[in-house]
Amino acid sequence: MGIDVGIYGATGYTGLELVRLLDGHPDARIRFVTSESSAGQSLRQSWPQAPDLPLVAAADAPLDQVQCVFLCLPHTLSAPIAAQALAQGVRVIDLSADLRLDDPAVYTEWYHVAHPAPDLLPVPYGLPELGRAALPGARVIASPGCYATAVLLATAPLVRCGLLVPGAPLIVDAKSGVSGAGRTPKQNMLFAEVHGNFSPYNIGRAHRHLAEIEQELDRAGQPYGTLIFSPHLLPTDRGILATVYAQVRAMDAVRAAFEDAYAGEPLVSVLPAGELATLGHVVRTPRAAISLTPASDDLLIVVSVLDNLLKGAASQAVQNFNLMWQMPETTGL
Amino acid sequence: MGIDVGIYGATGYTGLELVRLLDGHPDARIRFVTSESSAGQSLRQSWPQAPDLPLVAAADAPLDQVQCVFLCLPHTLSAPIAAQALAQGVRVIDLSADLRLDDPAVYTEWYHVAHPAPDLLPVPYGLPELGRAALPGARVIASPGCYATAVLLATAPLVRCGLLVPGAPLIVDAKSGVSGAGRTPKQNMLFAEVHGNFSPYNIGRAHRHLAEIEQELDRAGQPYGTLIFSPHLLPTDRGILATVYAQVRAMDAVRAAFEDAYAGEPLVSVLPAGELATLGHVVRTPRAAISLTPASDDLLIVVSVLDNLLKGAASQAVQNFNLMWQMPETTGL
Amino acid sequence: MGIDVGIYGATGYTGLELVRLLDGHPDARIRFVTSESSAGQSLRQSWPQAPDLPLVAAADAPLDQVQCVFLCLPHTLSAPIAAQALAQGVRVIDLSADLRLDDPAVYTEWYHVAHPAPDLLPVPYGLPELGRAALPGARVIASPGCYATAVLLATAPLVRCGLLVPGAPLIVDAKSGVSGAGRTPKQNMLFAEVHGNFSPYNIGRAHRHLAEIEQELDRAGQPYGTLIFSPHLLPTDRGILATVYAQVRAMDAVRAAFEDAYAGEPLVSVLPAGELATLGHVVRTPRAAISLTPASDDLLIVVSVLDNLLKGAASQAVQNFNLMWQMPETTGL
Amino acid sequence: MGIDVGIYGATGYTGLELVRLLDGHPDARIRFVTSESSAGQSLRQSWPQAPDLPLVAAADAPLDQVQCVFLCLPHTLSAPIAAQALAQGVRVIDLSADLRLDDPAVYTEWYHVAHPAPDLLPVPYGLPELGRAALPGARVIASPGCYATAVLLATAPLVRCGLLVPGAPLIVDAKSGVSGAGRTPKQNMLFAEVHGNFSPYNIGRAHRHLAEIEQELDRAGQPYGTLIFSPHLLPTDRGILATVYAQVRAMDAVRAAFEDAYAGEPLVSVLPAGELATLGHVVRTPRAAISLTPASDDLLIVVSVLDNLLKGAASQAVQNFNLMWQMPETTGL
Repeated sequence: MGIDVGIYGATGYTGLELVRLLDGHPDARIRFVTSESSAGQSLRQSWPQAPDLPLVAAADAPLDQVQCVFLCLPHTLSAPIAAQALAQGVRVIDLSADLRLDDPAVYTEWYHVAHPAPDLLPVPYGLPELGRAALPGARVIASPGCYATAVLLATAPLVRCGLLVPGAPLIVDAKSGVSGAGRTPKQNMLFAEVHGNFSPYNIGRAHRHLAEIEQELDRAGQPYGTLIFSPHLLPTDRGILATVYAQVRAMDAVRAAFEDAYAGEPLVSVLPAGELATLGHVVRTPRAAISLTPASDDLLIVVSVLDNLLKGAASQAVQNFNLMWQMPETTGL
Repeated sequence: MGIDVGIYGATGYTGLELVRLLDGHPDARIRFVTSESSAGQSLRQSWPQAPDLPLVAAADAPLDQVQCVFLCLPHTLSAPIAAQALAQGVRVIDLSADLRLDDPAVYTEWYHVAHPAPDLLPVPYGLPELGRAALPGARVIASPGCYATAVLLATAPLVRCGLLVPGAPLIVDAKSGVSGAGRTPKQNMLFAEVHGNFSPYNIGRAHRHLAEIEQELDRAGQPYGTLIFSPHLLPTDRGILATVYAQVRAMDAVRAAFEDAYAGEPLVSVLPAGELATLGHVVRTPRAAISLTPASDDLLIVVSVLDNLLKGAASQAVQNFNLMWQMPETTGL
Repeated sequence: MGIDVGIYGATGYTGLELVRLLDGHPDARIRFVTSESSAGQSLRQSWPQAPDLPLVAAADAPLDQVQCVFLCLPHTLSAPIAAQALAQGVRVIDLSADLRLDDPAVYTEWYHVAHPAPDLLPVPYGLPELGRAALPGARVIASPGCYATAVLLATAPLVRCGLLVPGAPLIVDAKSGVSGAGRTPKQNMLFAEVHGNFSPYNIGRAHRHLAEIEQELDRAGQPYGTLIFSPHLLPTDRGILATVYAQVRAMDAVRAAFEDAYAGEPLVSVLPAGELATLGHVVRTPRAAISLTPASDDLLIVVSVLDNLLKGAASQAVQNFNLMWQMPETTGL
Repeated sequence: MGIDVGIYGATGYTGLELVRLLDGHPDARIRFVTSESSAGQSLRQSWPQAPDLPLVAAADAPLDQVQCVFLCLPHTLSAPIAAQALAQGVRVIDLSADLRLDDPAVYTEWYHVAHPAPDLLPVPYGLPELGRAALPGARVIASPGCYATAVLLATAPLVRCGLLVPGAPLIVDAKSGVSGAGRTPKQNMLFAEVHGNFSPYNIGRAHRHLAEIEQELDRAGQPYGTLIFSPHLLPTDRGILATVYAQVRAMDAVRAAFEDAYAGEPLVSVLPAGELATLGHVVRTPRAAISLTPASDDLLIVVSVLDNLLKGAASQAVQNFNLMWQMPETTGL
């Protein structure tokens, strides 16, 4: 079996990882890679370890030569390409935020713009460990982002099992490497700004990814308190670590809830008691790891880690691709 | 005015900063610097920017030539030297944990060893912004450490003003540069281990500095919930950032509580609303900065930053020295 | 004595250091700071540790209120401001490349543009340790850059003393922290690009600073072989280390040549035999350090280090300012 | 085909990479991994991404269960194990320096100790791109180290083709990530020492690896001048970049010499004119890359890069393993 694929937005950090993975995937053949700013160049000019693939502008991509496309595009630019591809019978793995929210009004609330393709919604949310039923055979999958994946893996088992103290805030202190901010030059992402620094940003209830996290937690139909989400920028290139503080009703039931949730999962590990999750567990792998630390009778600390470019983006997209095409889920990972 | 001083433990990170500050202090004269492992060498061999001072073993330090000593020694080794100095009429600024806890039983509980000099206790706790009354003229001051300073500056105004919701946990997610772990070689502090990594350690209720933080918060005589303290190791050399999550009773009163607490303080800033504290605000300065972010009606996020080697160690020791000798508090800073 | 000064281009890395130094200089009063992109803001918005100074556009700077200006502007923009200031009787310390080359034709050869103010040339070259005679009382000084200072300090004593083997190449392998590339956002200076990387650029005979280095070496009237200059980008924020490989005629005379050249210099150290210069010797100081290692009978290795933003830019500018106004050379450093 | 292998010294940086590679090698089965300090633990305790293999002391390793061993041991400890393995009919890939030098007297000269197993010498030197003839079927291979590989790949084509100007020094300015210094705790390898620093060490003619570099260059029977080798410590974890300055007799012949030398080599690339080699080309890959820059009529700059733990250690050992057992050379890489 071999699926012909195209990758939109191949020169960003996520795009580069996705090319690397798909280039080595036994059942995928890369037919095109796009870039607006570097069209006409080779992908190797963007990244010396990349395969020597010619970059084309999105408008020139030969959609008729592929069966599936991956979209690593900014939000608002991604959904229109998804619509175009689907209209031509090409399946879509969208790594942008455009298709993650079921309700276009919620999209507008958080992204301050009308949804570019509301007719496509809703779309299956591609976090396989929390719900892979809708993914096999799907024509389009919204692949979630790095913060959402890290936080949902750390909190969904608690919500689903009704373990949270009603009304108590659910606090997530998250730290991310800088590649999450993308490859477009910005002064605050310069090496000389980040080196030796550490900064919170959009803390509290301000970060856009709250919307998709809450949407997915709400599916459990179980109450949870106000979700507080405080991201910080780490002086490293990749990796996310989320430290979650949760007031729980039955500390004794916590470990089983997580172990049941992820039993048999090849890409999510619940670490043994006493071992704390660190970026070193997961960086440059497609895996997530979770540690559980009871801090008091009712205060649980969950640490959740993953590589923001892999389980938080590119490898999760490949995982969704494998499920979509009904291949073994970890093929090529 | 000129005080003759000696510095014990001059070759560690804190000791080096202290030498630098005292070497430039207009009213201090360094008479000796000690090191057990490098006795006989020049301090310049430990640090190329240091002044060319001869290192002596502690046992050979000429206590009779000084009026004040600074102790940058490991706990259990520090208190006996303090006792010896005080017995000879030499005043003491102790940067170790030995003299910070009033009750030797609490010391034993957290440090798992008998207190080496219980007769010295209690000693004034040298966090001037939270209580400088006992410091002028003191014969000995226990200078607090980096985590304690960062956390106390961020929480004491809330406790003192009775602003915390009773029973709600007080959560501190802290991140520190690696110099806080000292200069003794350890595998987990090697560059190749820390670079690209980020790790929690001793999270929950396990870190020793909880003892002094709670002792100082308790002085306010106001209730607060379980203190949760989760330190993490940052891939940078210096700086501490503590993100505090507090449930408060009157969000409207929060800013005034902090602004009143630190009004006129030259070394602690409360940032204007909308500006978040970062390591870049304070690294390589003797200052702390605090930002206040209401995340919901009753959930407050306080971010507190300082340089762990300066306001968290050496410059705070000099601040205490200035107060002890009744000089202007920021002399030499 | 107090000189009223203005700083053009205050929001770049060099400008920020210069503000910091002049703000603490006992004989300078900052009257204005300029920025085109941030005019109307406070300098604190560019840098949280900066003093709270209002930024004005260069065109709005009150030249009539100052006696001296510092220009931290891009080349071609700097010389016209210099001309304007001089025409109003305001002295100039220019940190750009505009006034460093005596011959406008050489400027055009290397910068590929007509010189913006050829009537101002030649201007005294402000590397005090290699020639401070022309600096006291000068109306304008061209303050040299980081690479030129590091290389000239390491090679001028060899050229002046005629110690180089005629015809043998003079090889400089240089490494610089990224702040030398400035604060304007560029993709190749993003943290995620530089972290974990190390890159040569413009190696051989391609870097523009060769022109001023050779101009200054030529003043000695002594032969030297082809100068090869290979800069590399270090994954750190600041500091330059230049490793110079020189074939010498009399190895025995080398150390004396350097020690004589820098005898009594407060800001340039020749390290004792056996000690190698490192960035750690000089980063965040106004000093340069040089080590001398004979590698064979006739092959000498000189290692020269300095902080690119200080001795390679801002503190050297202040040193030149002090000389210009006939104050002690290290005032405020 | 499946070869049973054992790995001595599995908990160092090279050992860990080797385990990772051999664990994924289709024709190798890891039968044991050794560690003196961590015997009895799982390898996962040394490295969270490692497979869960039990560590045994070297003395307890079941040599009778394997056909081949890899030795990642300190010099002097490695050769005795090699002798023991060979005596039992087990083949050996030695990654230490013990078996690289043909002449035990040269070993003693550079390592200041008697050779621990001189009867084993000489042994084929496992740098396949410069000589793979002796490797297929070899019972023991000395796998060269990181600096030697980087420097030999950059200089051997020049020496072999007689392109160097006789008598002119051959200058190598090398820069290495810190993992090359190993995982044993040392103060100068602590994060807080290396971060923000950059340091030369053992420059000139002092580094031990000169011995094996010169031995291999001498095999060409062509003259070359004094080899100068100046290593520097980079503030990054992995990667070596060597900048070579060579005076050449026929610049026109240089590119062909390199392209001929490495034609068809899957793991060594000669970059096109105008592209400079950087660590980013090779880090975390088994490949080396070389760029050629003519700096003047006769001065050539060669930049050679590789990952010190892979092509400079573990992947080169696997390459040698593949050749030894007559498998395709890049199997498992």
